[in-house]
Amino acid sequence: MAFDRLIENIVNTQNPSVVGLDPKLEYVPQFIIEKRIDKHGKTLKAAAKAILDFNKAIIDEIHDICPAIKPQAAYYEMYGVEGVKTLAKTIKYAQEKGMFVMTDGKRNDIGATMEAYATAHLGVTDVVGEQIAAFGADALTVNGYLGTDGIKPLIDKCAAFDKGIFVLVKTSNQSSGELQDLKLADGRTVYAAMGDMCEKWGADVPGKYGYSGVGAVVGATYPEQLAEMRKALPHTFFLVPGYGAQGGGAEGVSKGFDERGLGAIVNSSRGVMCAYKKEGCDERDFAKAARREVIRMKEDILTYLPKIVLPE
Amino acid sequence: MAFDRLIENIVNTQNPSVVGLDPKLEYVPQFIIEKRIDKHGKTLKAAAKAILDFNKAIIDEIHDICPAIKPQAAYYEMYGVEGVKTLAKTIKYAQEKGMFVMTDGKRNDIGATMEAYATAHLGVTDVVGEQIAAFGADALTVNGYLGTDGIKPLIDKCAAFDKGIFVLVKTSNQSSGELQDLKLADGRTVYAAMGDMCEKWGADVPGKYGYSGVGAVVGATYPEQLAEMRKALPHTFFLVPGYGAQGGGAEGVSKGFDERGLGAIVNSSRGVMCAYKKEGCDERDFAKAARREVIRMKEDILTYLPKIVLPE
Repeated sequence: MAFDRLIENIVNTQNPSVVGLDPKLEYVPQFIIEKRIDKHGKTLKAAAKAILDFNKAIIDEIHDICPAIKPQAAYYEMYGVEGVKTLAKTIKYAQEKGMFVMTDGKRNDIGATMEAYATAHLGVTDVVGEQIAAFGADALTVNGYLGTDGIKPLIDKCAAFDKGIFVLVKTSNQSSGELQDLKLADGRTVYAAMGDMCEKWGADVPGKYGYSGVGAVVGATYPEQLAEMRKALPHTFFLVPGYGAQGGGAEGVSKGFDERGLGAIVNSSRGVMCAYKKEGCDERDFAKAARREVIRMKEDILTYLPKIVLPE
Repeated sequence: MAFDRLIENIVNTQNPSVVGLDPKLEYVPQFIIEKRIDKHGKTLKAAAKAILDFNKAIIDEIHDICPAIKPQAAYYEMYGVEGVKTLAKTIKYAQEKGMFVMTDGKRNDIGATMEAYATAHLGVTDVVGEQIAAFGADALTVNGYLGTDGIKPLIDKCAAFDKGIFVLVKTSNQSSGELQDLKLADGRTVYAAMGDMCEKWGADVPGKYGYSGVGAVVGATYPEQLAEMRKALPHTFFLVPGYGAQGGGAEGVSKGFDERGLGAIVNSSRGVMCAYKKEGCDERDFAKAARREVIRMKEDILTYLPKIVLPE
């Protein structure tokens, strides 16, 4: 299953973190934007091409020390069709460099339609007998509000194409509790009920290191819930957003890991993309600043973890 | 607010139904596919262009008798960047013909990222001072699992650009109850709690006909819950999927309407797109068959409704 490959990348780099590529144009250095606007005018095409330049330069600098990227679909859709083209090219470029790519799309729908999303992002599309990958990520974030028949088509693709999914369980944002923390009549919370479904769904796609192809999103901003879910969901790998800019710290995120330093991967987006702004270095040094931040973040997270090892 | 325009379209056509354009290539007549493959080979481009030809022909035939279309993003993403281009062109084409366009994307994320989705689908993107619409639909379906800060950016766009959203409340699929029907400690169900949030969110974007810019998705396959929600959510306009192919009938969907025949719009996708297959007519007659099905469906739904009138 796909998380086996992710886990191997993590062990090889000794780095349980993922860089979120959520590139608003305002994060991109001026010299890149100006070059593209000179050529294409103030257009979505210029913006999308500037973002692709930015992404590639960051990937070039981090692929040897970072196991994965997580492009967030919203920031590409914002630049229209040209933006979506940049998403597709970013996925391909990172994979060619050996990185594991999780498209953060939080897709969800009823079965027949989820089949189309699963095909789009994890599978291959049939065009009169030709099989073509539309986006071809290694994993996709999804929302389980619709229940099993919205998840089943994804599980099928995970099994057939060695892919994974991350289901939203407890999200990192402030108002996540409005629905997710509601108490059920059986004593569980809504997020715990969703977590239980992840364990159930994952049983059909077991992985060789103990974690199934069905992961969960649990926010760094809620360390108690992270600890609770780690204990309750032993076969579910966690994607942990909310570190850094959103307020989650290294000690808190350590609650998402198991005793081998596995079981979770921590995301940082703005912290890495905008490292050059925070450092105050020359904007032309943005990619190296991103690399420095990846190393700083990795060392910060590892402070609270054992050496990361594969199970025997 | 945007649902005012939708409501006026419904009254003008006396038709409370929307055509879902979820065009798998297998729904498209052979003569269209062959023409495009002759030109572009067996490629995603050929598939996407065939689908655009198909969509435009259907829109040409139904725009005078149908208030809205609902393109489902998954079926376009499935054909990659070229498919997404067809989505953008379909939205524009239908709007030019006077139709209200709801992009069915079920998007969801934390606030900062939802802002990007809201910009992508309902707002305009800033490119160094130029304001450009990326997709520019009139409404977007969304998933409220993340709570208020995932919805707030949408409300802002609804107010600024005269748009609307539909939040998933009780979906039409068989397993929707796994999470949505769970009983809360306070006696409500999860879907009812989500419905209550829709009323709350909608208060910031009231509409002149009594319905706010925050609608809800409630499936035709659950008429009892449709009746329950209609009563509980007096300011929330319903998008009702599940009629026809999924098993929902006209009497059931009537539970979603108010005493003026307003308050809901019923979706049919396959029923209309594949009407030519069901009729067994010449495939070149597919668009006229779609028109005949739109009329049949409208008459079926109206059997159980009063004459549709605007409130005084």
